[in-house]
Amino acid sequence: MEKQNSTTQESHFFNESERDGLYKTIFNRRDVRSQFKSDPIPDDVLSRILYAAHHAPSVGFMQPWNFLVIRDQKVKDAVHRGFVKANEAAADMFEPEKSKLYRKLKLEGILESPVNICITCDRSRTGSVVLGRTTNKEMDLFSTVCAVQNFWLAARAEGLGVGWVSIIEQDDLRTALNIPEDIVPIAYLCVGYVSHFNSEPDLQTAGWLNRTPLKELVFFDQWGSKKTAEEDLLIKALHQHRQFPYKWK
Amino acid sequence: MEKQNSTTQESHFFNESERDGLYKTIFNRRDVRSQFKSDPIPDDVLSRILYAAHHAPSVGFMQPWNFLVIRDQKVKDAVHRGFVKANEAAADMFEPEKSKLYRKLKLEGILESPVNICITCDRSRTGSVVLGRTTNKEMDLFSTVCAVQNFWLAARAEGLGVGWVSIIEQDDLRTALNIPEDIVPIAYLCVGYVSHFNSEPDLQTAGWLNRTPLKELVFFDQWGSKKTAEEDLLIKALHQHRQFPYKWK
Repeated sequence: MEKQNSTTQESHFFNESERDGLYKTIFNRRDVRSQFKSDPIPDDVLSRILYAAHHAPSVGFMQPWNFLVIRDQKVKDAVHRGFVKANEAAADMFEPEKSKLYRKLKLEGILESPVNICITCDRSRTGSVVLGRTTNKEMDLFSTVCAVQNFWLAARAEGLGVGWVSIIEQDDLRTALNIPEDIVPIAYLCVGYVSHFNSEPDLQTAGWLNRTPLKELVFFDQWGSKKTAEEDLLIKALHQHRQFPYKWK
Repeated sequence: MEKQNSTTQESHFFNESERDGLYKTIFNRRDVRSQFKSDPIPDDVLSRILYAAHHAPSVGFMQPWNFLVIRDQKVKDAVHRGFVKANEAAADMFEPEKSKLYRKLKLEGILESPVNICITCDRSRTGSVVLGRTTNKEMDLFSTVCAVQNFWLAARAEGLGVGWVSIIEQDDLRTALNIPEDIVPIAYLCVGYVSHFNSEPDLQTAGWLNRTPLKELVFFDQWGSKKTAEEDLLIKALHQHRQFPYKWK
């Protein structure tokens, strides 16, 4: 039984080219808002990406997600109105200088991208007591986010751009997509082929924020406990990554 | 300016082998609890995985995460006690038959895995108003989950097993790791080389739950709106995946 459900020690290592395929995807994934082309997405491509999303980890194997594939212009229009409303409210929340920059940023591609995907979480799927969610109730939401990240990476490997629209009220999404009250919309994604991928995050290019050096974010055994490159080889190894921040090779 | 921050249309597509490296990682990633070996993880390997996690998407580019690398036996012991306490409480929550099965399952590898990683979320990083978190306050938690999923996939591509321990109180993690009150522990991960990876999720093998067919989870334009393979080529394409559920090729 155990033998049937396992791979041998020799076969479970990936070769370098497979491993680098993953890293190339991770380091070249971007949040895309501006570069969408209207070209349709072939069904076999979209189905592979959805299949990858469905193979995310889920707490208690509950697979709480659904995938709404949105291609209807009227539905997109309704979602876009929800974004505009939430975005106007958002712009006023920043200090004057940041608010001015904020209003210049393009933050979604709902209407330009050929396909929108809404990924939702059904919190009562598989019953009220879920293995692994007994202590931390938000674990099913987190599982759904793992599906979003799988979707995003698979799309990038297929040459598709994805942008996550978080500036919209969940209730406006529920109304536009006829989603029941007890289902939580986790992510609304704009998906499509793009003219190009930017090599840096848009917000970095726009001067909003910079990437934090990784070594500042790593602690050892206790919160706040740092080491130097001399003390710990891991920190030394982290230093070396400064040479290839966005491309694996 | 725009030219410097972009790749040409020709270069942003991945070749088939790179793409399949990603898919192979996604479809062969498992939640590992039982097969850990004590072999140490080389620093350059662990640093690559952390670097991949740090390149997750984050709302407003806030990068709210920290990574605690735990190798101290006493710290692991303290975390393990927290798990045991939460797990005993959890077992009593299920119906008698499920409770009996639950108690047989091994759900963590805290002590056997050579490295534990705690990934946290600093909700006040970059200030109180965060671009993209103005409407949905949980977006920073979700960004941190994206970092967890990147970590998990990178580890799999490096031949390392990862198990997410969700059955532990956040306050017990804070105490064991000296994490401040305002920092949210999102994931506690057990990481190490393994004797083998199971080809199916442990909970499926144990008869807890089965994988849901993807086509049952996909809707079109509105919640609940389904199509048949005849009506929509995407559904037809989804059907074809039944032939390779866990291996890409």
